Amino acid sequence: MKTYPLDKVYRLIEPGPVLLVTTADAKGAANVMTASWVVMMDFTPPLIGLSLGPWNHSYAVLRSTKECVIAIPGVDLISRVVAIGNCSGADADKFAKFKLTALPAGKVHAPLVAECLHNLECRVVDARMVGKYNLWVLEAVAAWENPERKERRIFHAHGNGIFHVQGRTHDLQKEMTRWQEFVD
Amino acid sequence: MKTYPLDKVYRLIEPGPVLLVTTADAKGAANVMTASWVVMMDFTPPLIGLSLGPWNHSYAVLRSTKECVIAIPGVDLISRVVAIGNCSGADADKFAKFKLTALPAGKVHAPLVAECLHNLECRVVDARMVGKYNLWVLEAVAAWENPERKERRIFHAHGNGIFHVQGRTHDLQKEMTRWQEFVD
Repeated sequence: MKTYPLDKVYRLIEPGPVLLVTTADAKGAANVMTASWVVMMDFTPPLIGLSLGPWNHSYAVLRSTKECVIAIPGVDLISRVVAIGNCSGADADKFAKFKLTALPAGKVHAPLVAECLHNLECRVVDARMVGKYNLWVLEAVAAWENPERKERRIFHAHGNGIFHVQGRTHDLQKEMTRWQEFVD
Repeated sequence: MKTYPLDKVYRLIEPGPVLLVTTADAKGAANVMTASWVVMMDFTPPLIGLSLGPWNHSYAVLRSTKECVIAIPGVDLISRVVAIGNCSGADADKFAKFKLTALPAGKVHAPLVAECLHNLECRVVDARMVGKYNLWVLEAVAAWENPERKERRIFHAHGNGIFHVQGRTHDLQKEMTRWQEFVD
């Protein structure tokens, strides 16, 4: 795993991929869930909005530990990611069940997912929107890239079991007058 | 334009496409901007979180009218969408400049964009996160589909002028045990 620059975290979240979110409880038991209601909220420090509600087994652990890892899977993991999204950590050790490798993170207790392209270590910085909207404001405090994964394409959820894979790249850098941000 | 069911709005936003956002001021002057920091927050009524800050020309109008339209462009519009994201409504009538057709909406004063695949008429329902995070909670109150557009693929922003187009579809409906939502 290589470190990934925090000021480029927005480039991983802004495309809107399906994500994994890991947590670890006070005894060190890890869980992993699937998420795709996620949004960038600021560049630096990188703030990320994550929708995660009481119906999720990870909710109580996130609320008590205030830590999680957001991991970005390539499309080679799509079947496992969907299956992870269809069972509960209340019933199964999902790292074992889905043959994912939990690696220790640097700054949080939640584990990294070795098989993912990128991992973002996150701390909850604002939980005031959780009661009404189940929206957690996270700060990414460390980020990692796995350069050894051959399948680099991410994938997107359309609901109802339909997904699409990252297709052809359009490089419009020359058409951008500002380097990273849309204006209006 | 055909009506599109409100309970399926999440299927348009969850994939994370690059979007257009339109507003109209009290005199009826319309503006359009590019956005990609957008997230689903609830299914029904469909709630959408939109990051839109004071640096955006649309900000003051959104704050005063509390209405906007989110329009979802196909990749045939990518050059125009990027160009819209690189100039300001303070300097130009962007509907005229980029040859987009503003159509009257049904429930809000902001216009629909005829050339887009879908249009969501939105009202601001919570502005309490705007001061700190520039995050507006919108409710989609009407939705439209343009079935005549031949190019149906959406596209995604990676920052720095890099985009990718919707690629191959994976239908994993048979692997889903719940019809629309991930659990953990």
